[in-house]
Amino acid sequence: MALLLKSDATRLTLWYDAFHAQAPELEVRTYPELGRREDIEYALLWQPPPGLLATLPNLKVVFSVGAGIDHLLRDPELPRHLPLVRMVEDGLTAGMSEYVVMSVLLHHRFMIDYRLQQQAGKWEEIQQIAADQRTVAVLGMGEMGQDALKKLGVFGFKRLGWSRTPKELPGVECFHGAEGLKALLPRAEILVCLLPLTDGTRGLLNADLFSRLPRGAALINAGRGGHQDETALLAALDSGQLSGASLDVYQQEPGAAGGPLWKHPRIIATPHVAAMTMAPTAVASVVANIRRFEAGQPMQNVVDLSRQY
Amino acid sequence: MALLLKSDATRLTLWYDAFHAQAPELEVRTYPELGRREDIEYALLWQPPPGLLATLPNLKVVFSVGAGIDHLLRDPELPRHLPLVRMVEDGLTAGMSEYVVMSVLLHHRFMIDYRLQQQAGKWEEIQQIAADQRTVAVLGMGEMGQDALKKLGVFGFKRLGWSRTPKELPGVECFHGAEGLKALLPRAEILVCLLPLTDGTRGLLNADLFSRLPRGAALINAGRGGHQDETALLAALDSGQLSGASLDVYQQEPGAAGGPLWKHPRIIATPHVAAMTMAPTAVASVVANIRRFEAGQPMQNVVDLSRQY
Repeated sequence: MALLLKSDATRLTLWYDAFHAQAPELEVRTYPELGRREDIEYALLWQPPPGLLATLPNLKVVFSVGAGIDHLLRDPELPRHLPLVRMVEDGLTAGMSEYVVMSVLLHHRFMIDYRLQQQAGKWEEIQQIAADQRTVAVLGMGEMGQDALKKLGVFGFKRLGWSRTPKELPGVECFHGAEGLKALLPRAEILVCLLPLTDGTRGLLNADLFSRLPRGAALINAGRGGHQDETALLAALDSGQLSGASLDVYQQEPGAAGGPLWKHPRIIATPHVAAMTMAPTAVASVVANIRRFEAGQPMQNVVDLSRQY
Repeated sequence: MALLLKSDATRLTLWYDAFHAQAPELEVRTYPELGRREDIEYALLWQPPPGLLATLPNLKVVFSVGAGIDHLLRDPELPRHLPLVRMVEDGLTAGMSEYVVMSVLLHHRFMIDYRLQQQAGKWEEIQQIAADQRTVAVLGMGEMGQDALKKLGVFGFKRLGWSRTPKELPGVECFHGAEGLKALLPRAEILVCLLPLTDGTRGLLNADLFSRLPRGAALINAGRGGHQDETALLAALDSGQLSGASLDVYQQEPGAAGGPLWKHPRIIATPHVAAMTMAPTAVASVVANIRRFEAGQPMQNVVDLSRQY
């Protein structure tokens, strides 16, 4: 029984060690060393080359290394009859909440202004705003959105959440659907995007959306670059409609580095590192699903291709 | 019954409104408009000019606008027979915890490295470390230190705390005294200073202390500039012994702006704004103490001059 692994090269040892410790019976092969293709029953992948999966005759389940599966759906030959599993694991969720809480606090506490003051050699206090006078909205209320909203609650922020279908979370005012988004936006002083990239969410962070936010709002995008209209984002920053943005994802990765988004003084840019899948906990999640599958039980976090996540 | 107020000019209206709403019987006079000095029974002050308090014959209680009272002890004519009250109020505590959690997450998530990457147009992932593999130590376990430690717990950090006298806090490994500090330092990957400035803590953040930290540790100082040896700090950053620092306080304020600390690429500098006293909650705290005092009951948060906080 073999599993094909494709992740970034720097983390391969971590994956190997975790599989060896948690499922020694599983033979882990790392792309591009496939060996006999017939042996491969499971695949755990990040950005596989299009067409690869279709060449594995005995493949049973496709696991995504990341939370999003847009990198798999790009493959026109993706075997769509096979179960496709999103990555949901504690390390990834915890990392995303760290990034979201850090970024919300950065904007809440005017750290972009203070960064500019530091560069200019200026000393000027900006009047602090109490967290209970500040409204934070999170788009996307899956595992990660809900965990981030819970942890933001510790600081006393007013919290809004938005999802495609109705959800409930204690202490969070929940909105859903297109009408819900329209109602939420004028109140969102700090807007966090944690949505999956689907036909319904592509390009959602555009000029129209920015114009509906309160003037001076901040944007945090840790979803996908495909969510954001980058020309509109730069224009909103330059007009003052947005006071700042924390971006972890871009239309072009890594092509955005050094470009206009990375050079903008009111953008805090990171290279798609908001949340990294952590091998030990991720392997636990994958192995548990393989064992469920082998026992004929339903797996967790299987993608519904009709909704694209 | 009059109260003399000296705070920064931008916040005066907030103070006035809060006193008017919560204690309309109190006549609030703002420095330097003292009026008849005999009327002044209470004073609520930030950095009063030396000698001022000694000219108020009927003064009964001195309240500090800030958590620290070092700015009052500087006055050689301070009427030391009067009760002196530290500022402990929910807004100040909440603000400090925001700053501490934000700053800890910034260092935990390599945001100084990513800031340098952004400036250089580079795209390079740095392997994330799980919070439960990261040790954060807080020096000072008063109201603010304890609240910050509690909120850091939400993310799963290993937490150490240090105080002058023994304390206990669930989930936090507590140390005290000089021996305790020596035991704590080699484990403190992120060190947070929230100490009061006293003869015992002045200059504590010095070359010897930095050398005891694990290589590449980060320092967050939101205590007082008097805690830090700034020459030693710059040397520790340049040698790599420290990987970064978040500084909110300086030996010279606002003189540090534009100086070597502010220009250092591995320092995140803010102009003494980590925690601002928030007028509504601060006035509630002061008014409650005035009412206790008038009723002959003991006040809260009275300074013990022998320990200087």
